[in-house]
Amino acid sequence: MTEILSSYVAGDWHTPSGSIDGARAVHDATNGQLLHQVSSAGIDFAAVDEYARSTGVCELQKLTFHQRGVILKKLGAYLMERAKKYHEISFSTGTTKRDGFVDIEGGIGTLFTYSGVARRQMPNSTVHLDGGVERLSKNGTFVGRHILTPRQGLAVQINAFNFPVWGMLEKFGPMFVAGVPVIVKPATDTAHLTRAVVADMIESGLLPAGSIQLIAGDVTPLFDHLAEQDAIAFTGSAATAKHLGGLDCVRDRGTRFFAEADSLNFSLLGPDSAPGTQEFDLFVSGVVAEMTIKAGQKCTAIRRAFVPEQHKEAVAEALIAKLETQGVGDPREKSTRLGPVVSDKQRTDVLDAIDEITSAGAHVLTGGREASDELAKNLGGAYVAATVLQADGPWVDAVHDIEAFGPVTSLITYSSTEEAVRLAARGRGSLVGSVVTHDAEFATEFVRQVAPWHGRILVLDRDDAEESTGHGSPLPTLIHGGPGRAGGGEEMGGLRGVEHFMQRTAIQASPDMLTAIGGEWVAGAQRRTGQHPFTKTLADLRVGDALESERRTVTLEDISHFAEFTGDTFYAHTDEEAAAANPFFPGRVAHGYLIVSFAAGLFVQPDPGPVLANYGLEGLTFITPVSPGDSLKVTLTAKRITPRETDEYGEVRWDAEVVNQKDEPVAKYDVLTLVAKE
Amino acid sequence: MTEILSSYVAGDWHTPSGSIDGARAVHDATNGQLLHQVSSAGIDFAAVDEYARSTGVCELQKLTFHQRGVILKKLGAYLMERAKKYHEISFSTGTTKRDGFVDIEGGIGTLFTYSGVARRQMPNSTVHLDGGVERLSKNGTFVGRHILTPRQGLAVQINAFNFPVWGMLEKFGPMFVAGVPVIVKPATDTAHLTRAVVADMIESGLLPAGSIQLIAGDVTPLFDHLAEQDAIAFTGSAATAKHLGGLDCVRDRGTRFFAEADSLNFSLLGPDSAPGTQEFDLFVSGVVAEMTIKAGQKCTAIRRAFVPEQHKEAVAEALIAKLETQGVGDPREKSTRLGPVVSDKQRTDVLDAIDEITSAGAHVLTGGREASDELAKNLGGAYVAATVLQADGPWVDAVHDIEAFGPVTSLITYSSTEEAVRLAARGRGSLVGSVVTHDAEFATEFVRQVAPWHGRILVLDRDDAEESTGHGSPLPTLIHGGPGRAGGGEEMGGLRGVEHFMQRTAIQASPDMLTAIGGEWVAGAQRRTGQHPFTKTLADLRVGDALESERRTVTLEDISHFAEFTGDTFYAHTDEEAAAANPFFPGRVAHGYLIVSFAAGLFVQPDPGPVLANYGLEGLTFITPVSPGDSLKVTLTAKRITPRETDEYGEVRWDAEVVNQKDEPVAKYDVLTLVAKE
Repeated sequence: MTEILSSYVAGDWHTPSGSIDGARAVHDATNGQLLHQVSSAGIDFAAVDEYARSTGVCELQKLTFHQRGVILKKLGAYLMERAKKYHEISFSTGTTKRDGFVDIEGGIGTLFTYSGVARRQMPNSTVHLDGGVERLSKNGTFVGRHILTPRQGLAVQINAFNFPVWGMLEKFGPMFVAGVPVIVKPATDTAHLTRAVVADMIESGLLPAGSIQLIAGDVTPLFDHLAEQDAIAFTGSAATAKHLGGLDCVRDRGTRFFAEADSLNFSLLGPDSAPGTQEFDLFVSGVVAEMTIKAGQKCTAIRRAFVPEQHKEAVAEALIAKLETQGVGDPREKSTRLGPVVSDKQRTDVLDAIDEITSAGAHVLTGGREASDELAKNLGGAYVAATVLQADGPWVDAVHDIEAFGPVTSLITYSSTEEAVRLAARGRGSLVGSVVTHDAEFATEFVRQVAPWHGRILVLDRDDAEESTGHGSPLPTLIHGGPGRAGGGEEMGGLRGVEHFMQRTAIQASPDMLTAIGGEWVAGAQRRTGQHPFTKTLADLRVGDALESERRTVTLEDISHFAEFTGDTFYAHTDEEAAAANPFFPGRVAHGYLIVSFAAGLFVQPDPGPVLANYGLEGLTFITPVSPGDSLKVTLTAKRITPRETDEYGEVRWDAEVVNQKDEPVAKYDVLTLVAKE
Repeated sequence: MTEILSSYVAGDWHTPSGSIDGARAVHDATNGQLLHQVSSAGIDFAAVDEYARSTGVCELQKLTFHQRGVILKKLGAYLMERAKKYHEISFSTGTTKRDGFVDIEGGIGTLFTYSGVARRQMPNSTVHLDGGVERLSKNGTFVGRHILTPRQGLAVQINAFNFPVWGMLEKFGPMFVAGVPVIVKPATDTAHLTRAVVADMIESGLLPAGSIQLIAGDVTPLFDHLAEQDAIAFTGSAATAKHLGGLDCVRDRGTRFFAEADSLNFSLLGPDSAPGTQEFDLFVSGVVAEMTIKAGQKCTAIRRAFVPEQHKEAVAEALIAKLETQGVGDPREKSTRLGPVVSDKQRTDVLDAIDEITSAGAHVLTGGREASDELAKNLGGAYVAATVLQADGPWVDAVHDIEAFGPVTSLITYSSTEEAVRLAARGRGSLVGSVVTHDAEFATEFVRQVAPWHGRILVLDRDDAEESTGHGSPLPTLIHGGPGRAGGGEEMGGLRGVEHFMQRTAIQASPDMLTAIGGEWVAGAQRRTGQHPFTKTLADLRVGDALESERRTVTLEDISHFAEFTGDTFYAHTDEEAAAANPFFPGRVAHGYLIVSFAAGLFVQPDPGPVLANYGLEGLTFITPVSPGDSLKVTLTAKRITPRETDEYGEVRWDAEVVNQKDEPVAKYDVLTLVAKE
């Protein structure tokens, strides 16, 4: 009897036993051999839900964002050591080594990025602050601020077959940083690869109990358990996205739903990119790459290639020539650039889509059904020939609406920028568009107009080509998702991707309360003076610890001297008459740099101590000008304390406020320091 | 024949004529007199759509964000002058002057806030930058950044009856700033007040053609026209939200849908807030205010009042006593604190909900059906008596699930923080919760735990009470919306509210291309040196105009002198041995403040010219320490240019980069200046 793929649920591996009705058979894409079956029969979905909701939420949310970030980094390293194993499995899904790299190493890479997001852009605590403090009242006793807290629920991933590793990890990273337990539902055809990685994630022992579960097979019964605090993140077809968006948990109970659907992405050859230019070659290479990588089974692949009417033949010729150099065959062979699609069913779908497009108004320039049948016959797997279609006219609906999810693209001509803009929008919303041009004016006009229809736009030219990651690759620091047809969702984008699994809440309170709740000192809250806070280690320092300095009078001599010493002889500091004529100054005033320098002199603690360095300054604003004779005082308050998990020190952000003898504000800024833990 | 309320569509007023099937009659809430009828019969919805989509999008998106902001400010002033007229109409909806103020002046106030958001937080252009530049490659020739562009569609507002002015304007402000035309669909019962304001908005002549249309009556046919670039923003019941979320335009065509649904908000009396404390009185006043303002017809009103078991009787007694002091009657009377609900139908719904709750497990402490009938009989309008229910137990479902949308609240006891947290969450997601406590530790623990279930949380105590805007008032700088039962949407929140009507797009390009597309200079892009950029007015200055300074060597004497002059004698600048022992310094190093001061001396243009002032500094980071003998050079590049619409100058942000003799980066920061237009 064929093995049934096991699932990891409620802390243990579950394998359906006996003969299972409705189990789905999975075959090797390269040769049709039966590999195993997939079924979720016998899984106790209530237990899955309970395990995530109690154990998972509890264990994960004990950790700070930085602690989660450190785990992700270790996990990435652990998986990277095992990448070879995943590549071996990956071949059976039709994937070449080159393409497996995008999926496997690319997927693991997102963990490193999200480790960095957690440790560099979030506090080392369990509450993230979103934006600054809003003053809500005249006297400042009532203030507001947004916080982000982890949702008290779970996140279900429903992934596409094409990136079994990346698709799982690019979602897992943000979910884990947010602090929500994850249920992974891989696509059937490539579930065995996802399973291998998840098994190692669990085996690593790095993840808190309940952080992750894997269900190979149908997860429909799980939806009955989902409610207000849960989320579903889906990648796949627009039709399935529509179905999931209509689930009761989404419609009635407020489960958040995010979709990335395949879309009719475009690449445009700029009017300036004539044959012979570098951009022309880049365009051709880009289209060919997007046809061959993963055999075109990418939600970001180029389905519509827009070319200026006059270059139509040249592009077709170049594309065909380039495609002929791409080795087709077993993905295990080093020379192979184009492997099979994932399954016979997928192959049928792609060929049917090609037929549908051609019968509606396009013709085959290369590839197509017959060539594909020939290939499959010779190679014995789910092979589709690289197929370039030429649309009979730019406005043929089929080329904009029907997605052949394989190595297929349609050439579409355009005759003006205005028409190109309308053609791009005709995709009704896409994940990505690219424009290959060296004309910045054209790029600016075109990109600004098509941006509302796209989640990502690549501008490719001779300047960025060498380092460009290409049309089809989403990057973890940028959002992945698009409006309309593309599903309307957003994934990744650095911190943005984490926020989807958290709740934003506006807190209104007194400055003292807001300080306590947010963990960051807020202007107007109590300060504790006494021991110089620079003499305190992170072990002793508390938010609100403050220093109120002595006063220092700024003399005209100070200003003159500073001007001479630094060379900053701007007239406002050196020429009484000219300064008085300036709309903002009463006469000669002190340099802003003099003010902050004197302030440092007032707050510094000169001896070696816990404060190791002042590494920066943020948000410096000069408010009231300082005239000769004014007397300055600075108050420094520990605002945010961020001990590092992996160093013997951490960041301390100090609120600095300089006032004059009338207690008018002169300057406000944050001083950034590194302070020793002990 | 009764007048039918006119609608403003496709640039003209439309009044259905003759006898209309299905027209809805509207009565004065205070005396039952028939006012008019409401119907959208005869409206050409295709024309509505076309007018917004072509004229509206085109005219609005010609304007920059600042220009839109200036219009909003003028519009606010125009409407504020006419507030008295709106109050007169408002009375007929059952609203007192005090409550009308929240709706009318409060609503107009959001326009001023959004004017500020546009002019202070957005560029004076048509593309908004979202976040910083992401370095995507080793050599920096391939970089990324997110931009926000206005969606190429329209936004439909579907508003609740309770805030006919505020509900329309708090949505209009962000939509207008984003650049999308608006279709207003007011609730039938109060459409005449919305109509009066919209008529003035059009009459003002301030709005570009197509910016706003008003449809009184059914808008169902409009949904057939909505697609990928459009949005629906709804406020009302959870049931209607569910219906709208299932529309074909939302499910099939990707129209964005935002919902704010009424919710079972709570207010909690903290364990420390015993009778006799200020907080006890604040809690009682808060609950009474939320019952009486708008006769409790607020999606943010307190439906569930959580009190410690031991203070149950004291709270009930105080609530009843306070309610007895609230004048009930015609909202036109100055002494009235509680007017009628909006209509007889609404009154029936509220009384039915009270019955449903009491029969499920609560009893009436004051108010209820009989008292309400008595009131209505005496006063002749849609009056409901202020009703306090006591839940028979904290876990009676009805008090957490059934919303009586009138002057009704349920007292619910709790016995521990843990129980209070669970009770708050039992609302299944709310717009707002409040906690009345002076115990920061309790507040922190409780708020952090209930935050995931709420869009806004107010912490009320003796410190913020005087300036607090109270439990029920959303503020334009904070988000309004909540998870689950509350609809899952977000409105306002400053800039966040604008983003809902824009598309976020990740742009990947060379630094030059990204500079052109985003309108802000990006590191790595070309610089134009030559004329000192400080000698250029805004008329001549271009992004990328740069100054490369001479070099200046920093001597040990400079460092010693600066330490002595400023008083900043930190050991890293004054003691070779101690400095060398610091993990970050090779030995004595220059002060960071010395570096930026010398840099200013290197880039300054001393004579009076277009640069009026350096008003701040942002993102200053010290990278490589500067040792005696190092030679510094600064490059200053015009990064962002923001001419003001209403002043003779604007902001110029300069990228400053200081390097040493090895071209290693020493410091990076942005210099903020004010520069004259001419």
